[in-house]
Amino acid sequence: MAKEIIRATAESIGGLQVKCEARGLSFILDEPIEAGGTNIGMNPMECLLSALGGCKIIVAKMFAKAKGIKLNNIKLEFEGTFDIDGCMDKNPDARVGYSQIVTKYYMDADNSLEELEAFAEFIDTHCPVMDTVVNGTNPIHEVHKI
Amino acid sequence: MAKEIIRATAESIGGLQVKCEARGLSFILDEPIEAGGTNIGMNPMECLLSALGGCKIIVAKMFAKAKGIKLNNIKLEFEGTFDIDGCMDKNPDARVGYSQIVTKYYMDADNSLEELEAFAEFIDTHCPVMDTVVNGTNPIHEVHKI
Repeated sequence: MAKEIIRATAESIGGLQVKCEARGLSFILDEPIEAGGTNIGMNPMECLLSALGGCKIIVAKMFAKAKGIKLNNIKLEFEGTFDIDGCMDKNPDARVGYSQIVTKYYMDADNSLEELEAFAEFIDTHCPVMDTVVNGTNPIHEVHKI
Repeated sequence: MAKEIIRATAESIGGLQVKCEARGLSFILDEPIEAGGTNIGMNPMECLLSALGGCKIIVAKMFAKAKGIKLNNIKLEFEGTFDIDGCMDKNPDARVGYSQIVTKYYMDADNSLEELEAFAEFIDTHCPVMDTVVNGTNPIHEVHKI
């Protein structure tokens, strides 16, 4: 086993802006103006799709050659189905998170569509963010008053 | 029901760098140099924790007043347990994604620790990214050869 701990922090920096940081690298998440934010960064649900996109593409790039895929370029489009009434406590039947995430793979490669479909299946089952989002994880929390 | 579709795109921009975009807002994900990247952005598993952090803090800020929490500041630390051997196909028993995510809440608030613990529980059950990551989602993909 090669278990490791991945670390990140998030901090409120005024309004709905949140500074997210890991290994000294950072970005800001926010909400659109109509949701009470200042729109200087993606919202967290867009960021989740972005994490998924980054992970799938990095897995694709890392494994393409070994899997016989001559990958010239890859682009992904995501569509996540979300019902705001769930998190806003307005509808107990509404799912709080994404009920569905569609990934559209656009691959420029010297391979058949069938080979690309098998490769997309490989990516989906070897992408750590995808596995977490599809199969869930064990959540633990600690609360500290400062 | 108020179902909506949240959209994002991700595109390979050379090496392991990925440009992630939603509503014209963007950031770049990458890998550390020792993992074959150029380290100009977080890796996707750090980005996933960041999405979680942004979401929990925005839920906290949106609901604090209504829940009687006098929240002066909030900061979160995350520890995700990850085994690289899973996604690298080196160990079939290793989980591909996060097997566990610990959230450490640090809240500066004029409330008791018990009140803050109840509030953290409320946040965890009303955070859309958390719900997705804990309870999973239905994945669908389409593959296009371009």
